[in-house]
Amino acid sequence: MISNTLRRAFTTTTSSAKVGFIGLGNMGGHMANNLLAAGKEVVLYDIFADPVDRLVSAHPNAASAAATPKELASSCDTIITMLPSNPHVKSTYMDGETGLLAGVNAGTLFIDSSTIDPAVSREVAAACEAVSTSFVDAPVSGGVGGAEAGTLTFMVGGADADFAKADDVLSIMGGNIVHCGGVGTGEVAKLCNNLVLGISMAGVCEAMKLGENLGIDTKVLAGIMNTSTARCWSSDTYNPCPGVMDGVPSSNGYQGGFGSALMQKDLGLALDASRANGVPAPMGATAFQLYSMMMAHGAGGKDFSALFEFLEGTHTKNL
Amino acid sequence: MISNTLRRAFTTTTSSAKVGFIGLGNMGGHMANNLLAAGKEVVLYDIFADPVDRLVSAHPNAASAAATPKELASSCDTIITMLPSNPHVKSTYMDGETGLLAGVNAGTLFIDSSTIDPAVSREVAAACEAVSTSFVDAPVSGGVGGAEAGTLTFMVGGADADFAKADDVLSIMGGNIVHCGGVGTGEVAKLCNNLVLGISMAGVCEAMKLGENLGIDTKVLAGIMNTSTARCWSSDTYNPCPGVMDGVPSSNGYQGGFGSALMQKDLGLALDASRANGVPAPMGATAFQLYSMMMAHGAGGKDFSALFEFLEGTHTKNL
Repeated sequence: MISNTLRRAFTTTTSSAKVGFIGLGNMGGHMANNLLAAGKEVVLYDIFADPVDRLVSAHPNAASAAATPKELASSCDTIITMLPSNPHVKSTYMDGETGLLAGVNAGTLFIDSSTIDPAVSREVAAACEAVSTSFVDAPVSGGVGGAEAGTLTFMVGGADADFAKADDVLSIMGGNIVHCGGVGTGEVAKLCNNLVLGISMAGVCEAMKLGENLGIDTKVLAGIMNTSTARCWSSDTYNPCPGVMDGVPSSNGYQGGFGSALMQKDLGLALDASRANGVPAPMGATAFQLYSMMMAHGAGGKDFSALFEFLEGTHTKNL
Repeated sequence: MISNTLRRAFTTTTSSAKVGFIGLGNMGGHMANNLLAAGKEVVLYDIFADPVDRLVSAHPNAASAAATPKELASSCDTIITMLPSNPHVKSTYMDGETGLLAGVNAGTLFIDSSTIDPAVSREVAAACEAVSTSFVDAPVSGGVGGAEAGTLTFMVGGADADFAKADDVLSIMGGNIVHCGGVGTGEVAKLCNNLVLGISMAGVCEAMKLGENLGIDTKVLAGIMNTSTARCWSSDTYNPCPGVMDGVPSSNGYQGGFGSALMQKDLGLALDASRANGVPAPMGATAFQLYSMMMAHGAGGKDFSALFEFLEGTHTKNL
């Protein structure tokens, strides 16, 4: 009987340096496409066949499909996952029948770009380490536009050597690769960033709405805030008040951008972490409830800056 | 009998272009001193004798004291007020026995730099107009340091001609004089700015505290937030987490800066306006309660960024 270790070592030797990519949604589809366009051989998996078929058709010589994560793992030495949330990541890696770790070769590097609970990242990383593979969490910012353009920011948590190794593929998909610390710290950075973002956007919505009702010109108000202590990305780059800036969702009926439901999800993850660690987060909790209220009113698909119109009651539902 | 109008016209002609200054606290004392240092003749009033005496001693040829606001008004054609809040402004202007409007000359320009409810500014402005004087609201940002250095930002609400006339004294006390619109809009700008500031600071405190507990290096976290969508003055210029930045209150035991009680006052004014105008402000309400909690725990005199240590329960009381 060949030991697992020996079998893995053998398989590693014969694998052909392919990249695996699991999760071909709005973000992952563009990311995988950029890898293929850069000349990588990529093995694809998604629970839906369509996005896999599209990429295989577009790149017939470099893209191939796998039937399960387990099958994908057997032929790849770098595997990227881009999944909706905690349970999808856990089952994709750890399902005993079809999961990645059931078929992986020793020495494989996993890169999880999903936005999830850092505690789950650490749990999955431990499972990866137990079968002689390594794991980094590498959630992104930059949205669908950044995914398509290959300019994402990756916030990476993991060992130095794994961070260095991951750069080969991350630098194809992103413009800014930041090493945040050990496993999980990429997720921590992402959740903390979006915690502030969701809070500050909600604050700017309240202030712009109040100012408008109190009779100040909203462009004048934004100009003052942007050169004073209220200065923030939500005001100076993504102002939620229609007419203040061009080229942002507030000037386009709040279409596109980053959906309220996605912000609500990220705030929920931050609050899970705050609860698990005993850190009070009343501002995050209030912001979470506001974006939840937008979802309940049918505006979860609109950009999160649509909280501005939701505060005044003029919001419209998703199409 | 000489009509009021004639008497005012006569008095105006004989007044000697003095500047009146009422409210010589932490801010007003420095502001009046800068006017005197620039060669203005200034008539002073405060409910406390000490700050008046100090300025008169320092500038014996240019500073003089008045016994009441009414007396001060009779000898000045430009009058600046810098008072704690709504009731002080109303009584200083409108008290029938001793108030400014009881003794004012026609044509006088009032400049109120107090941070108050814009509705009160508009009420006082109407009373000023009724006795042939004019009024601008001109609240400031820049703190005690800016007041001392003469680099304050003035947010001015009032008619164009009054704004132009106010520049003569405002430009001595400030580095940035912004015309926000009609009467009250200076206060609107100030309250909206501080609404966002109080909210974003509380958000940054929650995120930095959560990140620290989750094991990311706080300087790395701040660096990521400051180059991403969490970027804001509260993070990149005034970070509340000790050790992240030098020269800010968080690196000096949260001494100096802008007290939690002052932020709570400004948020309360914003919430008063939101209530009066039917604008929901749940984020502002939550932030107000957090700074109120700090006050209840004896930390109202500490810089408002001390919410960081208050969240972790390591705060200390004021001295």
